[in-house]
Amino acid sequence: MDVNVIKKQIRVDTLAEQVNGEVIGDGSILIDSLNGIEAAVPGQITFLVKATQVDIIAKTEASAVIVPMAIEDNSGNGKTLIRVKNPYLASAIIHNLLLEKPFYAKGVHSSAYVGANCTIGKEVTIEPLAVLGDNVVIGERVYVGSGAYVGDNSVLGDDTIIRPNVTIESETVIGCRVTVHAGTVIGSDGYGYAPDELGRHIKRPQVGTVRIDDDVEIGANCCVDRAAYGLTWIMSGTKIDNQVQIAHNVIIGQNCLVVSQSGISGSSTLGKNVILGGKSAIKGHVHLGDRTMVAGRSGVTRDLPTGAVVGGFPAIPIDKWTKAASTYGKLPELRAEIRRLRKEMTELQQQIVGKE
Amino acid sequence: MDVNVIKKQIRVDTLAEQVNGEVIGDGSILIDSLNGIEAAVPGQITFLVKATQVDIIAKTEASAVIVPMAIEDNSGNGKTLIRVKNPYLASAIIHNLLLEKPFYAKGVHSSAYVGANCTIGKEVTIEPLAVLGDNVVIGERVYVGSGAYVGDNSVLGDDTIIRPNVTIESETVIGCRVTVHAGTVIGSDGYGYAPDELGRHIKRPQVGTVRIDDDVEIGANCCVDRAAYGLTWIMSGTKIDNQVQIAHNVIIGQNCLVVSQSGISGSSTLGKNVILGGKSAIKGHVHLGDRTMVAGRSGVTRDLPTGAVVGGFPAIPIDKWTKAASTYGKLPELRAEIRRLRKEMTELQQQIVGKE
Amino acid sequence: MDVNVIKKQIRVDTLAEQVNGEVIGDGSILIDSLNGIEAAVPGQITFLVKATQVDIIAKTEASAVIVPMAIEDNSGNGKTLIRVKNPYLASAIIHNLLLEKPFYAKGVHSSAYVGANCTIGKEVTIEPLAVLGDNVVIGERVYVGSGAYVGDNSVLGDDTIIRPNVTIESETVIGCRVTVHAGTVIGSDGYGYAPDELGRHIKRPQVGTVRIDDDVEIGANCCVDRAAYGLTWIMSGTKIDNQVQIAHNVIIGQNCLVVSQSGISGSSTLGKNVILGGKSAIKGHVHLGDRTMVAGRSGVTRDLPTGAVVGGFPAIPIDKWTKAASTYGKLPELRAEIRRLRKEMTELQQQIVGKE
Repeated sequence: MDVNVIKKQIRVDTLAEQVNGEVIGDGSILIDSLNGIEAAVPGQITFLVKATQVDIIAKTEASAVIVPMAIEDNSGNGKTLIRVKNPYLASAIIHNLLLEKPFYAKGVHSSAYVGANCTIGKEVTIEPLAVLGDNVVIGERVYVGSGAYVGDNSVLGDDTIIRPNVTIESETVIGCRVTVHAGTVIGSDGYGYAPDELGRHIKRPQVGTVRIDDDVEIGANCCVDRAAYGLTWIMSGTKIDNQVQIAHNVIIGQNCLVVSQSGISGSSTLGKNVILGGKSAIKGHVHLGDRTMVAGRSGVTRDLPTGAVVGGFPAIPIDKWTKAASTYGKLPELRAEIRRLRKEMTELQQQIVGKE
Repeated sequence: MDVNVIKKQIRVDTLAEQVNGEVIGDGSILIDSLNGIEAAVPGQITFLVKATQVDIIAKTEASAVIVPMAIEDNSGNGKTLIRVKNPYLASAIIHNLLLEKPFYAKGVHSSAYVGANCTIGKEVTIEPLAVLGDNVVIGERVYVGSGAYVGDNSVLGDDTIIRPNVTIESETVIGCRVTVHAGTVIGSDGYGYAPDELGRHIKRPQVGTVRIDDDVEIGANCCVDRAAYGLTWIMSGTKIDNQVQIAHNVIIGQNCLVVSQSGISGSSTLGKNVILGGKSAIKGHVHLGDRTMVAGRSGVTRDLPTGAVVGGFPAIPIDKWTKAASTYGKLPELRAEIRRLRKEMTELQQQIVGKE
Repeated sequence: MDVNVIKKQIRVDTLAEQVNGEVIGDGSILIDSLNGIEAAVPGQITFLVKATQVDIIAKTEASAVIVPMAIEDNSGNGKTLIRVKNPYLASAIIHNLLLEKPFYAKGVHSSAYVGANCTIGKEVTIEPLAVLGDNVVIGERVYVGSGAYVGDNSVLGDDTIIRPNVTIESETVIGCRVTVHAGTVIGSDGYGYAPDELGRHIKRPQVGTVRIDDDVEIGANCCVDRAAYGLTWIMSGTKIDNQVQIAHNVIIGQNCLVVSQSGISGSSTLGKNVILGGKSAIKGHVHLGDRTMVAGRSGVTRDLPTGAVVGGFPAIPIDKWTKAASTYGKLPELRAEIRRLRKEMTELQQQIVGKE
């Protein structure tokens, strides 16, 4: 029996209840999965974000469509609709509901290595060739993938998922419902040296740890360094994309989004709901207030107040940066015009002197 | 018997035939390897790309030299030459020929883990502590390195090489003659969330897969995310450098080059033979036409037509960007000159008013 | 017996001797560890970098404080002080001293795989599920973490530490006291192809190797490619942060610092004590002289002389770049002023013509 192929079937009206949606049409239709509007087939539900694209509904083969409130009836398409305030959000909630399944505990595989004095939940999956160090604590319904390493004295909370080949160095504390994708390294040494008189770099021991709170998701091949002293800390609900670098003693507040290939330098702190665009860079020892937004490829070099929206390097207010960036390509023309003005200015000056 | 130390020996004229080259000198000389022109020793072949550097030929110890057509005889150096249109290409073809050896099948190592219902070619090497999930299909002459993980239902075509500690998540389909270097992650979840009213980010399930076609090479520590729905797709012949990020639903056409530390955001598509310079960034949902070239460190924010060559951020035509970039450092001077012009303008205006 | 929990205790005056420091107060106090000034507790030593913050000393609970020479007595705080020229350096040296402990050799774990003809030191720790290929040479007091892979014919010098899930490809030579953090890949193929007439990319075999000298530290998820021919070489004392990309045939001199997410393109060379800021990019085939400094997020496109300090892209002298960068946001204003000047110039010209 393959546990993966048993699909649930849920009535449209039951799904609608979960998202405070209003059903138009036959609420008794059974749905087994969600798909994009063009690829969807009968038995599936799909969603439409923009009411202006209402005509697509008639073309999809989906059995039901989640739609924005602006779409008031299904007379043009005959489909079963679920009207909601925010179809993008509602479709995520419904999709998760359709995919939800009981945790399938395979236990600890005989080829996995488990160190001394570990405390492991009753229902877990520790895959082949995974490694737990000594004194590791593993909660219920935890998944640790093949080749993943969890160092001594680390903790994984309930329902946490560690994908293959992840490295979690010692003393790391990870909360519940956290997902860490493959290849990511958590708890590696921070980058700190003191130069001596001969120009050699003496390592500053990195004796702090990393704490990752509930509901955090960290992408593939990221790095989260342990603190020099104290904590590197990622608070609950924050979602980190692939290949992000988080240096020692960084603190990231709740519900932040940190997009791919960004880097946050040592001891910088982010408030709540901060968004860092892809490939952005944050200098060390700065603070980004709640709800700040940093455009992709930007570099922030100083503190940002609550709600600031910035771009460029050094980052400036986004509208200023957008205008400057669009003028950039005209720099050579501007320079030529300045030269012409100078020439004409000199001519005028001479003419006037000539007249006097 | 060490299979690695048996070197082939191939006659110069045999090598020349493989690259439509013309031999000048003794075509019967035996060659066992290829080396750079300064390090080469007798028994080796080397190559010269620029005819202007013809004098180096007399100094190399190599037994033969691949040269451009502009070099018409060997009277100045007495070496055996192979004249070809494109020495850079010919040397690559000859080098591969000299290194070619039969696949050495070690079989599946006893310490590797193989899941249920796998279909594995007769001649393969699955190294110690590699992991194959359930229902994995492995073609002939496939190499899977130590610590590599191939998830459930994934497929590796003939002659494909998976280096150590690579993670290939479930449902990934990889073609023939593909090489994936160490530490790379293929099929991790795409980065997609829907914010709710409380500012929390609800995960959008990533239920698509990744397809990688024949003759693709992917560097070390890259990330290729699985699609939200449908496919993330890298077409045949594309070569990807280290630490590249490829987001969900990206499609990369045939024979593209994606240089190190570049990032391609979700749902963007590249045509054929596109070149992305190192550290370049492509915004989501844009299309880069065939043969577009993006300079290193650039950021593309909109669609690019066939053959476009761009640089900067936001990327503009490369010549425009080059001129603007060379003017950038003069911005403070230009500003000072503008202030002087303003001052002088005001003076002139006053003088003229004074005269009236 | 847990070897990790036995703390040394060292007298303050003994510590002071190691850093040529002068003790003020009771030199017989016993110290067991070092901590930041705010978190320190009795029995710990801490340090103060700036004499202007002297008031903090009275508030710390630390038993002793390393201070700069400008602080001449402890009358204001009654603490035991160690006066030194460079507290930042002295605290690093003392911290290492307090943490120093004998190497704890666990031997080669039974689940690790060791290939044929390896030469392994008497006192080593090869952790569970680590892999050594054939003919690997491992010095004394070497640590190889779980899931790490050391390819055929590679060498690890004495006291070298390879963290979990590191991949060291074949023929790599690593010196003594080197640390390589988790997920890093050393010796993967360089990125080299020759295009043929059909736009396909023919791989140029990468037959060189990597050499890493003594006292190098390499962060997590880095890539160091093997040379096309010859060597990719990182010289002694160089410290590399996380997610750095080092391409084939790069040579990095002694005691360089390469900060996170930087990339160095093929065949470029760095002198001694070069500093590359985070996310900086170095073009291929350029040379950076000794003690050059490259600001974060910069791109170097040409050779730099000894001691150059640069920023921007293309990188220019740092002061020039700083001024230009601070003018950038004013580009739209400058453009508007230029237009006004043009308009007024034309008016003036007409006025003068009108008078003639």
